[in-house]
Amino acid sequence: MATAEESGRAERRGRRRPAASHGFVQPPFRQPRLPFPPVAAVSADELEAIHLASLEVLEEIGMDFLDEEARSILEKAGADVQAGSQRVRLDRSLVMQAIGTAPAEFTLHARNPAHHVRFGGNWVAFAQMASAPNCSDAERGRRPGSQADFRELVKLGQIFNILHLTGGYPVEPVDLHASIRHLDCLADFVRLTDKAFHVYSLGRQRNRDGIEIARIGRGIDAATLEREPSILSIINSSSPLRLDMPMLQGIIEMSARNQVIVMTPFTLAGAMAPVTVAGALAQQNAEALAGIALTQLVRPGAPVVYGGFTSNVDMKSGAPAFGTPEYVKSAWVGGQFARRYHLPYRTSNVCAANTVDAQAAYESVFALWGAIMGGGNFIKHAAGWLEGGLCCSFEKTVLDVDLLQMVAEMLTPLEVTPETLAMEAMRDVGPGGHFFGTAHTQARYRDAFYAPLISDWRNHESWVEAGRPDAMGKASRLWKEILATYEPPPLDPAIAEELDAFVARRKAEGGVRTDF
Amino acid sequence: MATAEESGRAERRGRRRPAASHGFVQPPFRQPRLPFPPVAAVSADELEAIHLASLEVLEEIGMDFLDEEARSILEKAGADVQAGSQRVRLDRSLVMQAIGTAPAEFTLHARNPAHHVRFGGNWVAFAQMASAPNCSDAERGRRPGSQADFRELVKLGQIFNILHLTGGYPVEPVDLHASIRHLDCLADFVRLTDKAFHVYSLGRQRNRDGIEIARIGRGIDAATLEREPSILSIINSSSPLRLDMPMLQGIIEMSARNQVIVMTPFTLAGAMAPVTVAGALAQQNAEALAGIALTQLVRPGAPVVYGGFTSNVDMKSGAPAFGTPEYVKSAWVGGQFARRYHLPYRTSNVCAANTVDAQAAYESVFALWGAIMGGGNFIKHAAGWLEGGLCCSFEKTVLDVDLLQMVAEMLTPLEVTPETLAMEAMRDVGPGGHFFGTAHTQARYRDAFYAPLISDWRNHESWVEAGRPDAMGKASRLWKEILATYEPPPLDPAIAEELDAFVARRKAEGGVRTDF
Repeated sequence: MATAEESGRAERRGRRRPAASHGFVQPPFRQPRLPFPPVAAVSADELEAIHLASLEVLEEIGMDFLDEEARSILEKAGADVQAGSQRVRLDRSLVMQAIGTAPAEFTLHARNPAHHVRFGGNWVAFAQMASAPNCSDAERGRRPGSQADFRELVKLGQIFNILHLTGGYPVEPVDLHASIRHLDCLADFVRLTDKAFHVYSLGRQRNRDGIEIARIGRGIDAATLEREPSILSIINSSSPLRLDMPMLQGIIEMSARNQVIVMTPFTLAGAMAPVTVAGALAQQNAEALAGIALTQLVRPGAPVVYGGFTSNVDMKSGAPAFGTPEYVKSAWVGGQFARRYHLPYRTSNVCAANTVDAQAAYESVFALWGAIMGGGNFIKHAAGWLEGGLCCSFEKTVLDVDLLQMVAEMLTPLEVTPETLAMEAMRDVGPGGHFFGTAHTQARYRDAFYAPLISDWRNHESWVEAGRPDAMGKASRLWKEILATYEPPPLDPAIAEELDAFVARRKAEGGVRTDF
Repeated sequence: MATAEESGRAERRGRRRPAASHGFVQPPFRQPRLPFPPVAAVSADELEAIHLASLEVLEEIGMDFLDEEARSILEKAGADVQAGSQRVRLDRSLVMQAIGTAPAEFTLHARNPAHHVRFGGNWVAFAQMASAPNCSDAERGRRPGSQADFRELVKLGQIFNILHLTGGYPVEPVDLHASIRHLDCLADFVRLTDKAFHVYSLGRQRNRDGIEIARIGRGIDAATLEREPSILSIINSSSPLRLDMPMLQGIIEMSARNQVIVMTPFTLAGAMAPVTVAGALAQQNAEALAGIALTQLVRPGAPVVYGGFTSNVDMKSGAPAFGTPEYVKSAWVGGQFARRYHLPYRTSNVCAANTVDAQAAYESVFALWGAIMGGGNFIKHAAGWLEGGLCCSFEKTVLDVDLLQMVAEMLTPLEVTPETLAMEAMRDVGPGGHFFGTAHTQARYRDAFYAPLISDWRNHESWVEAGRPDAMGKASRLWKEILATYEPPPLDPAIAEELDAFVARRKAEGGVRTDF
């Protein structure tokens, strides 16, 4: 290992150093990097066959683009747009040329420069769960989200260093009117956190408001904002093969200002995509390429992420399943596509469980196995996701944070040095001895190993004496203790004032239309 | 994909075909293969540095071999054995030359040829948990193992196709006297299962009895048995740097008859090994190489497996921890060593949880992440392991079987063919349509996806109506239903008679000594 690695050791691990703003111990904010090549789940020939199938889909079947401006941009670029129809056919050279201008790596800027996030390469970023209609915790039960819930979850997102950005709304605050909800929520992202955040593409005005709030939060001018991507938006196609108007407007607004688009088809094999995983991936790839091409036609070089969200459904009920073997394989192949196109890759940490039991844990770790070994750069829904996305759980948030911290530690390269090879310690201890008391152990034992949040390593007798606690119980206690340590990150009063004024003005203007 | 792959599809997946002998649905018996290169967690240079450190340990510190015959074999091969001492120093050329004769791949033969197990290459084999002093299930609670428990668990091991061999005793039947326990248990392995099995190295006579029972069970002569390895034994070093007498006798007895040795140091970083993972791995490797070298000095070409079991301890209590980030990294590097020496690689599916909760699941899936991506060929303790090995759980057995089946499905290559690429289906459905009703879906939906045993994919409302079942509850119901389907595999009456006679004779002789 290089000397730079050595000197950075305390910084990289730093398990015993509490973050300045709160009182529980966690590793410092840092992005993990995948230290070895990701999995190639299909051969180069097979990847090419799926790639060609997706180009054929775009050429021969085409996609419906439900926004006139988007169709006009595509038509100008040479796409086949039929008069009086939403159907657009894109030939392969158009698609491949367009996506060629997208950057392989870029930085998403947070208002705290220490929380900037690198996308692409072998960088990994974890974002808090987003877009749940409900939330739950063991004490208060399951309920539709409110602003109070939203704020608690956003605070947790700020506290945990392993969550590199907050993503969308962890829970939808349904007590806020839809016309002004985005203004309150985006302002909360700026006030309650200093991490990068997300704006929903639900009509162009929301994107514009989000971009402006990101600019105000960072205290920069419009030109700097265009040089430094500072907000992201997830674009989902309405699979199969359709991009709705608000999504297309989102691409146009965000890409025109050089902000980040994450283009993620929601291709459930057997429902909105073919029942075969290869077919679902061909469709995922077609939809992703179409959306990515549009970002580049709007503004060559605009930052964009290749998103994969292919999974299967329960063929008995039609319910989506996550963390399944099919999900893992799709995540692996999705990464192969992103790398083929030299784009950052987005995946997710998801499950279909209804409670924080063994199922929630194994589906999530399998999902992470797919995401991480697939070369995922941006792992959305990384903490809190339950019930296939219908619920954000406070307990699952803590469990996932523990899982993510373990993944980050797994990806931290082993230190192989004369000191860590411990020849002297082995000589001192000799055959049949014990290492507990050696100087080598004493000098290192405090931060030698990852200290888990949830795991209970007591023996059976002590565990029974303690009342047979399970992981759910421990997570329930922990989120409350950890939330209590929250302190708002410092915010320049001038920025706070400008933010308040902007939100007040936009509310006075009536927010945004809610009629589509 | 090749045509052979295609035609084998129904065979490989076959999810709807119940096995002949019992009434629940599971994929057929087949060994998964890792379809891509395993993880290289350390660089070639770093691997070499650890390798050289372990050779230095064997040369300079040496190891204690607590059996005179073993020391004499080593001395004859050129090792430095000090008179009146158990310490043996092995120089690097001796070690490397000796291990060079071990086979990179071999077959372990079961009495049912359909259940032969391939070791090495990219083959994966899962063995049932072994050696727990206790067992537990939700209804009967936790108790020391009995013959009745042993038999129930062995029957489960026979039923599940994903368990390729039964391993050691899933639970120790403490109601059987230690002098004859191995006779009853080994005879049970032959009677209750037709899969390959394990004999403990607890004195040479037990190994001899085990080898004879394996021979009788397969109905072959001694010469065939020596050509066809038919039983395996795990050898654990008494870390640090010591091999006890019964273990050394096990190596001598088993290797002399060309039976399988799995050489597994139990190197817990911070306790029996240095607190640094690199140091613990150097020690693991030294101990593994020493044991492996001995097998080859006993009989060049004898089948032997490189075993890794390095993990960390909880530095507060000294309790072993499993499925930790340090465990995963150790499992990855262990595989690099095995491949460097052209040996099959043994790892494990282990956890430290006390109950089948989220912790049990995430520690196990992380352990499998380490085992599978590390290129593990032989995954011991693959189903049932709880409490760091102190308890075999009936519920965990079912949970693990589900996890293993999912891993096997993850490793099954995607089919990429014109049919699976589903161009026609996408054309038929078109933008905005739905795939449920298409012919492409209808022809495939029944076995399109892995059908999990445990996962509950119902929506929240249905799940609440059903009484909020969790994974533990489902596993508790399932093992009873599945065990009820057990049917003993056919056994030639002549073999049964020979087996009974052998056991009766050996019991009459008093079994084995129990005084060490």
